[in-house]
Amino acid sequence: MNKLIKVSLAGVLSFGISMAASADDDEIEEAIEYRQAGMEMIAWNFGRMAAMVKGKMPYEAAEFAKRAENVAALSKMSLEGYILGSDEGDTDAKAKIWTNWADFKAKMVEFENQAVQLADVAKTATTLEEVKPQFKNTAVCKGCHKKYKK
Amino acid sequence: MNKLIKVSLAGVLSFGISMAASADDDEIEEAIEYRQAGMEMIAWNFGRMAAMVKGKMPYEAAEFAKRAENVAALSKMSLEGYILGSDEGDTDAKAKIWTNWADFKAKMVEFENQAVQLADVAKTATTLEEVKPQFKNTAVCKGCHKKYKK
Repeated sequence: MNKLIKVSLAGVLSFGISMAASADDDEIEEAIEYRQAGMEMIAWNFGRMAAMVKGKMPYEAAEFAKRAENVAALSKMSLEGYILGSDEGDTDAKAKIWTNWADFKAKMVEFENQAVQLADVAKTATTLEEVKPQFKNTAVCKGCHKKYKK
Repeated sequence: MNKLIKVSLAGVLSFGISMAASADDDEIEEAIEYRQAGMEMIAWNFGRMAAMVKGKMPYEAAEFAKRAENVAALSKMSLEGYILGSDEGDTDAKAKIWTNWADFKAKMVEFENQAVQLADVAKTATTLEEVKPQFKNTAVCKGCHKKYKK
């Protein structure tokens, strides 16, 4: 009987531990993939606006406005993917994101704010000159990458 | 009139061909990754709404509304990732997407419309019962997956 209890307990414990470990790992992996998907989609849309700003693609107001609207929407999504523990895994995020959380979060919110303003400007703009200044303001992402991305 | 149709047809054909020709392997890979990122982000947000609808997570109006807004924004983004030639590569997209393009596009637009309506309903809803019917309407993605996803 004692032996049976011991065996069962050992089974339960090891099952519990493996469950806890695997659930966390899955959640962390999913969160990393989510934020990476968000960044990838931002890059796709941002890159096309950058090409217009640099004269590598013709400026088209409706196209630019759509890209800006997409980036504004996406800029609000990625933050929740930076869950605790997700500094480890298949990620370029530096661990200091979590030790400097307030600063990192403020930088993400600043990017959101700039992206929303860009979408607003782009909605009614008809020339590249009108969107250029706010596009440059929205490129704050670079500073954050430099500090927090491997 | 016949001539006009012929000229237009020639234009459409050459446009189609040049589009197809200009999409190189890198562009195709990037487009596949873009649409997959979009689908992944939709799944993240949609899954959390589904958990609330199924009672696996407590319903929180603000949380549900944010998820619905995210899905509405994301639902408009993925379509452009289905470029010509991107039926080959690391993708679960069936080739018949491109042979049934009008039907596929209509289904994507239907999903967008339902997702936008869900975001509208969720914005002012305070109970789960208010959002449930439109959440179910938004789950049209399933039918499209069945037909066009490997």
